[in-house]
Amino acid sequence: MKAYEIQSGFGLDQLKVAERSMPIPGPHEVLIKMRAVSLNSRDLGVIDGFYNPNLMLPFIPTSDGVGEVVALGEQVTRFNTGDRVCGIFTQSWISGEPTQDNWVSTLGSPLGGLLAEYIVLPAKGLVRVPDHLTDEESAALPCAGVTAWHAVVEEGTIKAGETVVVQGTGGVSLFALQFAKLHGATVIVTSSSDDKLERAKGLGADYGINYRQSPEWDKVVLELTNGRGADHIVDLGGSATLNRSISALRVGGQISMVGVLSGYRVEGFDIIPAILRKARLQAINVGSRDMFETMNRAIDQSKLRPIIDIVFPFEQAVDALHYLGKGKHFGKICIKF
Amino acid sequence: MKAYEIQSGFGLDQLKVAERSMPIPGPHEVLIKMRAVSLNSRDLGVIDGFYNPNLMLPFIPTSDGVGEVVALGEQVTRFNTGDRVCGIFTQSWISGEPTQDNWVSTLGSPLGGLLAEYIVLPAKGLVRVPDHLTDEESAALPCAGVTAWHAVVEEGTIKAGETVVVQGTGGVSLFALQFAKLHGATVIVTSSSDDKLERAKGLGADYGINYRQSPEWDKVVLELTNGRGADHIVDLGGSATLNRSISALRVGGQISMVGVLSGYRVEGFDIIPAILRKARLQAINVGSRDMFETMNRAIDQSKLRPIIDIVFPFEQAVDALHYLGKGKHFGKICIKF
Amino acid sequence: MKAYEIQSGFGLDQLKVAERSMPIPGPHEVLIKMRAVSLNSRDLGVIDGFYNPNLMLPFIPTSDGVGEVVALGEQVTRFNTGDRVCGIFTQSWISGEPTQDNWVSTLGSPLGGLLAEYIVLPAKGLVRVPDHLTDEESAALPCAGVTAWHAVVEEGTIKAGETVVVQGTGGVSLFALQFAKLHGATVIVTSSSDDKLERAKGLGADYGINYRQSPEWDKVVLELTNGRGADHIVDLGGSATLNRSISALRVGGQISMVGVLSGYRVEGFDIIPAILRKARLQAINVGSRDMFETMNRAIDQSKLRPIIDIVFPFEQAVDALHYLGKGKHFGKICIKF
Amino acid sequence: MKAYEIQSGFGLDQLKVAERSMPIPGPHEVLIKMRAVSLNSRDLGVIDGFYNPNLMLPFIPTSDGVGEVVALGEQVTRFNTGDRVCGIFTQSWISGEPTQDNWVSTLGSPLGGLLAEYIVLPAKGLVRVPDHLTDEESAALPCAGVTAWHAVVEEGTIKAGETVVVQGTGGVSLFALQFAKLHGATVIVTSSSDDKLERAKGLGADYGINYRQSPEWDKVVLELTNGRGADHIVDLGGSATLNRSISALRVGGQISMVGVLSGYRVEGFDIIPAILRKARLQAINVGSRDMFETMNRAIDQSKLRPIIDIVFPFEQAVDALHYLGKGKHFGKICIKF
Repeated sequence: MKAYEIQSGFGLDQLKVAERSMPIPGPHEVLIKMRAVSLNSRDLGVIDGFYNPNLMLPFIPTSDGVGEVVALGEQVTRFNTGDRVCGIFTQSWISGEPTQDNWVSTLGSPLGGLLAEYIVLPAKGLVRVPDHLTDEESAALPCAGVTAWHAVVEEGTIKAGETVVVQGTGGVSLFALQFAKLHGATVIVTSSSDDKLERAKGLGADYGINYRQSPEWDKVVLELTNGRGADHIVDLGGSATLNRSISALRVGGQISMVGVLSGYRVEGFDIIPAILRKARLQAINVGSRDMFETMNRAIDQSKLRPIIDIVFPFEQAVDALHYLGKGKHFGKICIKF
Repeated sequence: MKAYEIQSGFGLDQLKVAERSMPIPGPHEVLIKMRAVSLNSRDLGVIDGFYNPNLMLPFIPTSDGVGEVVALGEQVTRFNTGDRVCGIFTQSWISGEPTQDNWVSTLGSPLGGLLAEYIVLPAKGLVRVPDHLTDEESAALPCAGVTAWHAVVEEGTIKAGETVVVQGTGGVSLFALQFAKLHGATVIVTSSSDDKLERAKGLGADYGINYRQSPEWDKVVLELTNGRGADHIVDLGGSATLNRSISALRVGGQISMVGVLSGYRVEGFDIIPAILRKARLQAINVGSRDMFETMNRAIDQSKLRPIIDIVFPFEQAVDALHYLGKGKHFGKICIKF
Repeated sequence: MKAYEIQSGFGLDQLKVAERSMPIPGPHEVLIKMRAVSLNSRDLGVIDGFYNPNLMLPFIPTSDGVGEVVALGEQVTRFNTGDRVCGIFTQSWISGEPTQDNWVSTLGSPLGGLLAEYIVLPAKGLVRVPDHLTDEESAALPCAGVTAWHAVVEEGTIKAGETVVVQGTGGVSLFALQFAKLHGATVIVTSSSDDKLERAKGLGADYGINYRQSPEWDKVVLELTNGRGADHIVDLGGSATLNRSISALRVGGQISMVGVLSGYRVEGFDIIPAILRKARLQAINVGSRDMFETMNRAIDQSKLRPIIDIVFPFEQAVDALHYLGKGKHFGKICIKF
Repeated sequence: MKAYEIQSGFGLDQLKVAERSMPIPGPHEVLIKMRAVSLNSRDLGVIDGFYNPNLMLPFIPTSDGVGEVVALGEQVTRFNTGDRVCGIFTQSWISGEPTQDNWVSTLGSPLGGLLAEYIVLPAKGLVRVPDHLTDEESAALPCAGVTAWHAVVEEGTIKAGETVVVQGTGGVSLFALQFAKLHGATVIVTSSSDDKLERAKGLGADYGINYRQSPEWDKVVLELTNGRGADHIVDLGGSATLNRSISALRVGGQISMVGVLSGYRVEGFDIIPAILRKARLQAINVGSRDMFETMNRAIDQSKLRPIIDIVFPFEQAVDALHYLGKGKHFGKICIKF
């Protein structure tokens, strides 16, 4: 069977298709014929060697995908052949709060990834996906969907009538927009592109702020909320956005620290404004299997559809990753087998 | 000005229109010209003397209503004349958890009620109502709306994808239905009338169970949830429903004990099934001003409209109360001034 | 190796020592040489056939115990030989909220129990015990300790300055007393025995109420709390106590429904008093492995010691169960191997 | 009556005793004869004009104090003359979550402070203090005590067995130490002084870290917790400590952002380590009247005594403020009338 491997060194140009022997499931494991993978910016960091320079090569990258169960270990009862399943990103985080140990069980580094025709995973590290979703829509769920659900619904306990600010229009952001709308909230999206803001409104966003035109977007949020501030801000920017996120927050509100698209380090993080708002800054690192299944029930019940920007065939996976690097996407970038 | 009074003794036939002098607001109070009142079954208990046999007569009954601010005490800054406001049911419960003291500050007993052309209330005991609501819709909010919001959203932390069972089609039930749908939940309504079940479906209910035809409605709930049980049950029946509510609940689920329509006392309450479900039984007693304002933001944002069964003119208030006693209504019964 | 078995029929007189072949751990399992077992009233129900009349015989009863790891399956990494471990009562409830499936994984029915010289259990169903505890003290933890911790600390979020009422002086009650004191709370114990009340005070209880002498113990609680009511009541009585527990509760307080010592069914459960207190009735069914480990950290840090009433040798296990049936104990009854 | 005033300009040398006319309570207010005041570093900022350059002069500074009720407005029912009371720092924050409006109701700026022989405050802005406390101990409660209680108990939901890191040995830090110990937690204190660390151990601290000698104190915390990290860190340093606080935190732990003793702005705040710990950063801004009263019940029940570094007479208030500026204190600095 075929798999993409980071072979002799790091870098996107090192990512090559290789022939591997078919993996065999152990007694508690499942053999999955992959159908679609979705990409996350983390995948580029893994391929570049930035994320983990000590990764043992060759290595199959990417963490999110969906496939069909084609063989079962003898002890497996959770699934049947024919089931369509996603691997959960943090394989060992089943329920409750995470532990340090969970972080070494993430797919696509340090555990091997999913960009292969066949994959073996433990049965407990899988979830069924809603029937109404296409393969590429299902592949979008593991990181982007679960992260947004964790931030907005689990830690954010979103309520109808609240206002949520979502930064950008990548995968997490659009899921956060959709989940917030599903719970009756008002959603404000920020973007550098008027076109993307219009598309976000098409998905239900109530307001869009072009932060190129309005760099003081926090003040616009205060205006739109009659001076009250937003109840919840899903912060994806990191270095360039965190101070403004606090400034745009209502007293007692929550910021979900989810991403670092503009940088890992805030040069000059102001504590006083946070204290004057009794701000809660909640870091979010994907989520548990329980959250994934709870989210799937909501998606199933509401027939919500994840937003897919573009789908590449398996043969063009490298092109897909190049496209991801350009940061022009609106929603998820997927690869179909 | 005119007001209905329980005059020389208890009973609906003692409820008479009387002429009273115009009330005058103190420095922290507001004079309100009443526009509409909504009825609750509690009002019948107060008028019958069942609720509080020691009530000092004459007494103006009913607790829920909306009016226009027509004069302000000199210290009042929260409102302007012309504002349309509801009194909050528990006048002294502003925020956070309730205290014993709060319960003696409820309108319509022991504090005087709202079935009068003009009423004086403390400014801190009022909230503005959403602009898009009619007067009768606004009058429906204080008990029925806030109770449902408190149960489903505040204590229930409802999430999309969850299943909520709502008993009956009175005021609290229909608000609970609407708030659950607003947050993306699946809703099952129980009723003794197929006609009412159809109307509930028209409001978004996903399933209806006629408990006359299916007295073991708990088993139907289990079927509808693939054996999992409902996440949240808003129990309005009391004596006749509580054991079945537990039986229909998922492990770890919540029952909001809101009403006692079928009786105050459960003859044979089974504890073991509750323990085997790690059930939470949360009694709900209306709610705080903070909850009322949070609910109003959700109603305003979503343009949700309370369900009004019928509107009587002020002159026919006694007829309205007789109609309430018949228990045939679907939604709220209102009186318009 | 020797084990007690319910052999040809139910009843304590059917409980006999049998010779069994040594169990062999599978790849994810551990072989444990048992050192001590503690008894719960549930064990009598299992042996009598009341708890589960369809239990397949012969059956080894009892759920709580401690032993030494003497052999490891090849995949086991959580433990080493020599570790002293308890089995967790609900073997599959690791973290987060429980599910329906968890309830069929409880030791001592339907899964086999621990009254045997050697036991095999999955590694994930075990926890290490604090070093300072004796074997019999460790054996007391799985049901009684975890139930009390779950009620008072996890669901009760006990705070210093709060008042907790604990009913009786059995295993759960004394753990609840100890955990409440460990968090700086005031504790009121109820009992039918002045002698036991004195012993409870020796463990830190602030007040004792003899409910034989003061059947209206709820009123005594109200007096002791200056009319405010208790913040938390650990209800072990069930049928005879639940209404009074509500009457003794502060507005907004919590009752943990833990036991049914006086009966399974409340004949005449009053809903109105619960509503007038915004009471929360939280059923508790032991707890997860996470809770067990969190509790163990607290026990380890504080050097708390479980209260043991009496220790029987393995040969007198039937006597120990007879003694349990008399209900005269103060703390846990243990059996030492 | 005498009062200290910031008179013609900012600066500690401008703080002068002035003669003022006796204040007269309005109908909902109380006249208090002050007995003791405690100082906070905020008071220096107010006097320097740094905190609010637009403060209207003359202005009476300081926010925390205790006095005796000597006269009551005609509508006041919460207190009697002779009651010993503290003003609450945020006068309008009674219960539940704060709002933007609450922040303009803080004593000692923008509202006038307590460094005067007689003060008038609204009855609803006062709480009774525990009988066993001296006046200076009572004066320590409003900011330092309530902030620590809010952080450790209300938002931190501290449990026995958890580990709390407390930075420094000022007023908030020592209250946090005491409240954490009261709930059975392990406490690690950091300080630049071995002498202060020894005194902290005398108050119950389990470990002390001298951050002069061990600048990488986060690594020491990891060692002391067997690599797990602390459950809760009360961050008082701000700019110099926040990154290390995250590094010392367990996965899923909480940092309470309480102070900015080393600076207002973190030059280089790293987001990735926070995400890799699912860290919660919760800013704390004193607390509500409900929290104050809940804390007082705990202090009363446990007979806990606040730690007072030194007491100055009223005539030496300026010396007391100079002493505060030196930052050498261990616990609270008080002024006695």
